[in-house]
Amino acid sequence: MVYGLARRELRPRVPLRPGEGDKHRLTSLEGLAALSLDALSSVAYGPEAIVLALVVAGTGALTATLPITLAITFLLAALVVSYGQVIAVHPDGGGAYAVAKADLGATASLLAAASLVVDYVLTVAVSLAAGADALASAFPALAGDKLLVCLVGLALLAAVNLRGVTESARVLMLPTVLFVVAILGVILLGLLRAHPLAVVGTARPVHATEALTALVVLKAFSSGCSALTGVEAIANAVPTFREPRVRRAQRTELMLGALLGTMLIGLAVLIHRDRVAPRGGVTVLAQLTAGAYGTGWPYYATNLVVTLVLGLAANTSFGGLPVLMSLLARDHRLPHLFGLRAERPVYRYGVVALALLAALLLLATDADTHRLLPLFAIGVFIGFTLSQLGLVRHWAARRPPGWRRRALINGTGAVLTTLAGVILLFSKFLSGAWVVVLAVPLLMLLFARIQRYYTEVGEELGLGRIPEPPPRRTASLVIVPIGEVSELARHAVGAALALGDEVVAVAVHADPARSRALEEAWARWDPGVRLDIIDSPHRSLVQPVVAYVQRAAADGRQVAVLIPEVEPRHRRYEILQNQRGLLLATVLRARTDVVVCLLPYRLKL
Amino acid sequence: MVYGLARRELRPRVPLRPGEGDKHRLTSLEGLAALSLDALSSVAYGPEAIVLALVVAGTGALTATLPITLAITFLLAALVVSYGQVIAVHPDGGGAYAVAKADLGATASLLAAASLVVDYVLTVAVSLAAGADALASAFPALAGDKLLVCLVGLALLAAVNLRGVTESARVLMLPTVLFVVAILGVILLGLLRAHPLAVVGTARPVHATEALTALVVLKAFSSGCSALTGVEAIANAVPTFREPRVRRAQRTELMLGALLGTMLIGLAVLIHRDRVAPRGGVTVLAQLTAGAYGTGWPYYATNLVVTLVLGLAANTSFGGLPVLMSLLARDHRLPHLFGLRAERPVYRYGVVALALLAALLLLATDADTHRLLPLFAIGVFIGFTLSQLGLVRHWAARRPPGWRRRALINGTGAVLTTLAGVILLFSKFLSGAWVVVLAVPLLMLLFARIQRYYTEVGEELGLGRIPEPPPRRTASLVIVPIGEVSELARHAVGAALALGDEVVAVAVHADPARSRALEEAWARWDPGVRLDIIDSPHRSLVQPVVAYVQRAAADGRQVAVLIPEVEPRHRRYEILQNQRGLLLATVLRARTDVVVCLLPYRLKL
Repeated sequence: MVYGLARRELRPRVPLRPGEGDKHRLTSLEGLAALSLDALSSVAYGPEAIVLALVVAGTGALTATLPITLAITFLLAALVVSYGQVIAVHPDGGGAYAVAKADLGATASLLAAASLVVDYVLTVAVSLAAGADALASAFPALAGDKLLVCLVGLALLAAVNLRGVTESARVLMLPTVLFVVAILGVILLGLLRAHPLAVVGTARPVHATEALTALVVLKAFSSGCSALTGVEAIANAVPTFREPRVRRAQRTELMLGALLGTMLIGLAVLIHRDRVAPRGGVTVLAQLTAGAYGTGWPYYATNLVVTLVLGLAANTSFGGLPVLMSLLARDHRLPHLFGLRAERPVYRYGVVALALLAALLLLATDADTHRLLPLFAIGVFIGFTLSQLGLVRHWAARRPPGWRRRALINGTGAVLTTLAGVILLFSKFLSGAWVVVLAVPLLMLLFARIQRYYTEVGEELGLGRIPEPPPRRTASLVIVPIGEVSELARHAVGAALALGDEVVAVAVHADPARSRALEEAWARWDPGVRLDIIDSPHRSLVQPVVAYVQRAAADGRQVAVLIPEVEPRHRRYEILQNQRGLLLATVLRARTDVVVCLLPYRLKL
Repeated sequence: MVYGLARRELRPRVPLRPGEGDKHRLTSLEGLAALSLDALSSVAYGPEAIVLALVVAGTGALTATLPITLAITFLLAALVVSYGQVIAVHPDGGGAYAVAKADLGATASLLAAASLVVDYVLTVAVSLAAGADALASAFPALAGDKLLVCLVGLALLAAVNLRGVTESARVLMLPTVLFVVAILGVILLGLLRAHPLAVVGTARPVHATEALTALVVLKAFSSGCSALTGVEAIANAVPTFREPRVRRAQRTELMLGALLGTMLIGLAVLIHRDRVAPRGGVTVLAQLTAGAYGTGWPYYATNLVVTLVLGLAANTSFGGLPVLMSLLARDHRLPHLFGLRAERPVYRYGVVALALLAALLLLATDADTHRLLPLFAIGVFIGFTLSQLGLVRHWAARRPPGWRRRALINGTGAVLTTLAGVILLFSKFLSGAWVVVLAVPLLMLLFARIQRYYTEVGEELGLGRIPEPPPRRTASLVIVPIGEVSELARHAVGAALALGDEVVAVAVHADPARSRALEEAWARWDPGVRLDIIDSPHRSLVQPVVAYVQRAAADGRQVAVLIPEVEPRHRRYEILQNQRGLLLATVLRARTDVVVCLLPYRLKL
């Protein structure tokens, strides 16, 4: 289920090292198994969303499920045809952000980025919530703890992704195949039986509170559009296909469309025939599963596979958003730290940010799928539309043979997705879409503001200009704060002598007797360096040293303060050491312009 | 209510500067008002605890309230007499930790410290919980949110104490006087009336589940002993009294004993006469208040004064524990960071530790006073006993005139408090005292372990020995990681030239084109320093620099890495800067022994 077009291209599921051959790449069928998980998993909540939107007009209104699903399938067909062209034009893949930046300019790329961020976060939340629903359908005891289930799942995903996963598209094949087999089985067996084999869940009274107006139908249509999320994934992953990759990818996109369409229509026919209304404790998909398989082990197995696939769909965001954030950081539109990879090849700040945002969203909606869905899909349709518009611009600019026909196809796609997006927005505005309407422009403003800041800083730092030559070598003074005469002091004075033209040791003491003792010990040691003792009647250590350093820095020399740090061998002892030195370093960095040097002294302990 | 004898001495309520005269010191009556708040506030929960312990044997058992209170008052009398001697022997005050360290040796002082820590934390929790009870008695709407009330109160106390308070004993006088007047009024008016004026709270059925056995009586006695906490406060604050200070302090201690005893007995008589059983939603003290004053404004005012006094009692721990922790840190028994005071004269780590521990305790017990009380008082009695034992040792060692009589008094006190402590421990073991039995030895072990660590580190650092002279001056190499040619690079190279015999700039680039551009810019700038560019195909910045530094450090020179840091003028921009430099600094400090130098470059932005 992800949305916007960035992910696959950014992090191909099959990482290829130079020299690796075509045999590691995907055939059309393998590609289908590996890349359609996002899109297919949305059948777990899309049809249910239609039913839930219609039932306000009574169970009779459920007959509208099938025509609405057909309309959605038509939109799907248009998207599949359009994406066939995206694949041809961008055989190297291309996320909505990259495409918009290249073809549509700065504002469109900010819009793409903002809607992508929103949708990555929503994908995690919706997939986890729907996964918890599926799990609770199999194990009703969990029904009261869905939020907890989601948060535990989220923590697990975050932990795995902080460690770093060696992703491979092939890992995703088996769950996808199991999922497709299970759902197609539900449809086939369901259609063969005259009546559902078993009924699960507790009946809920259905009160028709509204007539089956056009508004109700539009709401149901836009709810169902959440089933379309994820169809862009294949277009983003063209480089992972075997040659001829464009042809194979286009074929896979077609197969995905056919499969998703079949599943949606098949489930809608069953819903229509059996008048499946929402029941307490189970999902609509679980009701259909029980109707087809009964309540034996296949029921449990199917629900577990659905849960697994939804969990994997949530995980795809962890592959996507941190990479997108690193791209934004490289474009100076997010703090540069989102581009940092430390010890592990993981954008840890992005992973943490995604987990926190998704957790917030789950907490705010109590992990209720049907409170999350109205926020969903809007961002996706923004991405759809931007990609199509980009292509129209592309055709109009290049004018290859047949460009008018192609532009027409993509233009139609853009019009349809815009239309669907507008319907989505207006029919769902009050029930949650306003959040997205607020969040997307705020994010765009934030990105623009950050970019302006970095531009101004770059100006001030003279990036791109050749600066004056560095100043002539100045004399240097190294100040060494010490506590007592010890090996630590010896180590620090030795290093300071190597770095400074002049070295001074400085100590703070509240107690005159201890001051004298230190002075005597220093005289006996006689390291060839002056010791200044500062009185501090208030037992404060940091203030007097800072004041001393400030005075010393006033004479134009390059002043450095060298702080020796005792480094215990075991991390668990770290809290016992160094805190004073780190505190001094922090205050010095905040209050003075001197160089603050940290010198480790490693203990054997 | 605090316990153990450390606090007052460590931080006299009236800070005296040299030259300040006797007129700023306390008279006996002023001392009573200023120093008895801890002890007196425990009448808010002590009598109630007795009632609650007795009522398991039916309302008839409540007649035992009075004799049990008399026994507790007898123990109070013994404590008052013993503390009269403590005052004479330690006119400079002396906490249980200091006294035990001086007179009883290392293990006893660890025991004193551990029980003090436990009791400071419990004081905060119990006082806040009892304060929330008193508040909820006046405003029943708060009854469901007592935990929240406590946590908000705790956050407030922590915030105030992190900012630092200029404490003055005189501030505490008014609340204490109001409290004493209100409670004595309750007793007098209550005794004058034949029947309670008003009954508040919802009746609860009382089922006698046990007979009035000796065990029930012992449990009630030990519950009631929580009313004795805090009587040591005056003995710790002798230096704040006007001359003749020993006499005045002894007189104050006597007055405190008389007042507390009167209040306890008076409340017990009322409970006895009116058969006051626990009722839902209000405290026993609130019932008595309503019985005496009715339910008009005096009822609300009294409950608010009780809440205020309990809040102030909780605050006394924030004056006490951080100071105790700083003493323990100075004795190397806690991490040295607890002895740090940075910008403000506040032991912030101690304040934070106290707040966190108290919050944990409140969460674990759901802020229920009656689940907290069984943990309480045990630590107090350990402190009582250790002080008395210390005095017995003192008399036996010095043998002044009449030492046998004095030793007998303190010995009796020690036996009584030991006895009470043992009763407390056994009768409350299962209902919570086991926590203290676990916590105290674990804390002692922790203190001892930390002390051993610091001793070993001191050995390794050669503390107290004169080290070899520092090594002869070695040559130095300063490595400057740079990103681009800019003012920042100029600033850093300038500082590096002042500090190093040789300076090398180093850059990491993933992209050959950008490498070449940087090389050309460097050549055009020509700062007189070599630039090494490291290739990093994996876009990792930190690893290649660390490897480069490790190679450079192998040749015996003193190597320093100088990391320039862009410092924005506004804190809110900090997240946008420096993260890369700090990350590099962190990894270098963990992996290499080189000097890591941070050089600020302050932006005008």
